[in-house]
Amino acid sequence: MPDSTPSRILDELAAILGPRGLLTEPADIAPHLSDWRALYRGAAFAVARPASTEEVAAVVRLCAAAGVPITPQGGNTSMVGGATPDESGRHLVLSLARVNRIRALDPLDMTMTAEAGVVLKAAQDAAAEAGCLFPLSLGAEGSATIGGVLSTNAGGNTTVRYGNARELMLGLEAVLPDGSIWNGLRRLRKDNTGYALRHLLVGAEGTLGIVTAAVLRLFPRARDTALAFCAVADEDAALALFRRFRDRDESAVRAFEYMSGTGVDFCTSHIEGVTLPLEARADHYVLVDLASPRPDAQLREMAESVLFEAMQAEEVTDAAIAANEAQAQKIWRIREEHPEAQKREGASVKNDVSVPVSKVPEMIRRCSAALRELIPGSRPVPFGHIGDGNIHMNLEQPEGMDPAAFLARSHDIMDCVNAVVRDLGGSFSAEHGIGRLKTDMMEDWRGGAELAAMRAIKAALDPQGLMNPGKVLP
Amino acid sequence: MPDSTPSRILDELAAILGPRGLLTEPADIAPHLSDWRALYRGAAFAVARPASTEEVAAVVRLCAAAGVPITPQGGNTSMVGGATPDESGRHLVLSLARVNRIRALDPLDMTMTAEAGVVLKAAQDAAAEAGCLFPLSLGAEGSATIGGVLSTNAGGNTTVRYGNARELMLGLEAVLPDGSIWNGLRRLRKDNTGYALRHLLVGAEGTLGIVTAAVLRLFPRARDTALAFCAVADEDAALALFRRFRDRDESAVRAFEYMSGTGVDFCTSHIEGVTLPLEARADHYVLVDLASPRPDAQLREMAESVLFEAMQAEEVTDAAIAANEAQAQKIWRIREEHPEAQKREGASVKNDVSVPVSKVPEMIRRCSAALRELIPGSRPVPFGHIGDGNIHMNLEQPEGMDPAAFLARSHDIMDCVNAVVRDLGGSFSAEHGIGRLKTDMMEDWRGGAELAAMRAIKAALDPQGLMNPGKVLP
Repeated sequence: MPDSTPSRILDELAAILGPRGLLTEPADIAPHLSDWRALYRGAAFAVARPASTEEVAAVVRLCAAAGVPITPQGGNTSMVGGATPDESGRHLVLSLARVNRIRALDPLDMTMTAEAGVVLKAAQDAAAEAGCLFPLSLGAEGSATIGGVLSTNAGGNTTVRYGNARELMLGLEAVLPDGSIWNGLRRLRKDNTGYALRHLLVGAEGTLGIVTAAVLRLFPRARDTALAFCAVADEDAALALFRRFRDRDESAVRAFEYMSGTGVDFCTSHIEGVTLPLEARADHYVLVDLASPRPDAQLREMAESVLFEAMQAEEVTDAAIAANEAQAQKIWRIREEHPEAQKREGASVKNDVSVPVSKVPEMIRRCSAALRELIPGSRPVPFGHIGDGNIHMNLEQPEGMDPAAFLARSHDIMDCVNAVVRDLGGSFSAEHGIGRLKTDMMEDWRGGAELAAMRAIKAALDPQGLMNPGKVLP
Repeated sequence: MPDSTPSRILDELAAILGPRGLLTEPADIAPHLSDWRALYRGAAFAVARPASTEEVAAVVRLCAAAGVPITPQGGNTSMVGGATPDESGRHLVLSLARVNRIRALDPLDMTMTAEAGVVLKAAQDAAAEAGCLFPLSLGAEGSATIGGVLSTNAGGNTTVRYGNARELMLGLEAVLPDGSIWNGLRRLRKDNTGYALRHLLVGAEGTLGIVTAAVLRLFPRARDTALAFCAVADEDAALALFRRFRDRDESAVRAFEYMSGTGVDFCTSHIEGVTLPLEARADHYVLVDLASPRPDAQLREMAESVLFEAMQAEEVTDAAIAANEAQAQKIWRIREEHPEAQKREGASVKNDVSVPVSKVPEMIRRCSAALRELIPGSRPVPFGHIGDGNIHMNLEQPEGMDPAAFLARSHDIMDCVNAVVRDLGGSFSAEHGIGRLKTDMMEDWRGGAELAAMRAIKAALDPQGLMNPGKVLP
């Protein structure tokens, strides 16, 4: 933006948005300039906080006319710097936080129409109050917003049963790069009327337009649950156990999580209140979370039966089934505290990768061996969603090593993991997206016909390149 | 295509495809020029039958260079003329019938990689042989192909449980309009790496590229099933019964179909072997198909329990539960023979529409009344997938009326139904797509920002407009 522009556009923005809708003081803007992981610190001449779809559209039209780049922002919990402006100071940050009404909830249709700024936890709560379930569940659910989880196609723990954010969305409303409002809030399971714009916007990270509202799918709430924490013989046994549960009743497997002995050790050492629910330590663990709307599903009995078979087959060496909800929550904490426990243990590098489900054991083994060879003494901490092939193949620094020296090897570590993942037909970004962190990998992984098509679509819908520039496409 | 071009491009096509791969005799071409419903009869100078993705790409490159329009064709079972060339004779029909290998099937990953020309039934059978289920199921499954069901995002009977074709697809391979091959055959549940090209191609009806192969999701096969045929009090009672079953165990509801008394009367009158499994005729019926991978799911007991409650509430007036697989198949025939029975009764007009599930009863009632008023003596035959909001709101001619005179009112009939559907927030094409039949409705229903974005995408990916011209976009 030319130096002369800011004051004029600020006046116009103020006229549209009013005093609550525009932040221009450095102290007010600052929280919007850094990403959650503190990988980037950008700049912006203002933060727009529109309160309605119409205001979002007015802001986008103004920016389109003035050639001002826009960085859309939801809960600002991106793991890849997806909601952080660049350092130029030319960007306007457009926060959706005030576009946050739940417009409708229909327990007969099993749909909820929620605006982009609705926090994921608030959407879950609204569904629960109506006796329904909105199943998307992830660590940042207390801050992440509906617009953000759709724009990044968030995954989380329940993908194995309910799919990613994409599969939970029936319709969208969005402001397109020219400032037009597209109302695609259709509450339909079947609607074959042209190109699937809604699926193009989901996962586009705000680079093709700004999601302002969505029709979300709801499900019947669980009336029977069972939760087991198991020590398993090795990575193959973890996968074999998943297969046993899936083949018995795939619709009952709400989550199926793998954890390494190392990661669980970190949790029990560093996190108060986290204890191992088994008698002896193991090198590999699995958390099995079962749920059904049938009160008579007898999931505890099913879990016991499957675990008995798996013990006979020497896949499972020990297991505990939660006796009540409090115990279940305590077991879930072992899994949820992995990021915090890793942080307390020292520096670590995250790798959010996926492979075909059948390849997970090989991926964990090969990555762990390669990482130990790359940095002797380093400690692989693989954990995550084995049921959908998405493992967080994280690496903890060697004990006593200088954290900065370890983090200086971040790119070597990511390259090391990605080489194995690629060989196994996997992806370098499973659920976190591309953002700013991984744009430089797009050419290598998605180059050729695929990236050319993406670029053609971007140029067609956002010819000025003003929507979240610097993200997704290199 | 200029008159001078055909002979030259025919030589080049023959060189690429060999004698089995190119049809030029009028008698050989003829079966490829009409659609399944005989609504259109087009022309083509040849039919290309490539046997591999590479051959498809070579044909597309040749046509792109020569400016020759391509009409891709799978099983040629489109309900809307989607695979029929126009009358100009300038088109090349590109049949995928010989690109028909199942490249891989992994019962651990629960994925199958199938080429575009694989017939849907063959894909179902391959999955079953491996002990798995590929759940997409529709009337034309003996002819329709994987490429076709994905390009049209086919729905069918099991959408209520497993989603449409879109939701059953993890990865795609396609030849793009410039003749480049895009290999997106990723077997991943999570892969957030840029725009969802695969979802853009699904449902694009071949206008953005030609699907050549896909990674499909498989599911555990059913080990317990139950099937009920019920007389219900009215349309509201049909929906209330759906809700009862869904709330009890939504994952067990494999299909939930509504039928009118009129439609069932046609079937029992005209189709040999179809009989009513209840003592007395009713005005409204429902077919409930339950399935679970759990052998101990006790679905029959669940069905009895739910039906008992629904009888107490006077929603269900009579019901029969199939005692065995043969009885279940016989009951399914009542539903499946609806199109044939309608044909034998006389002329009819089809309306493949959808509304939010909660609006189905109102839609059926309002459409039926409006249609009877539009054409006195005409007989509404609503039937279909009440569980996903997609009802075939068909209309049978009045007894004794001249069929041609009735069919001359087709557009009035469609307009009459669509006015109600639109008022209820529905869609004018639920599962059949746009093809050639409904392009002229796109401006009215999807005009503005949405159609503008579709046109921009089309121009960006197919700047010459050679991919299935005349379809989808007006």
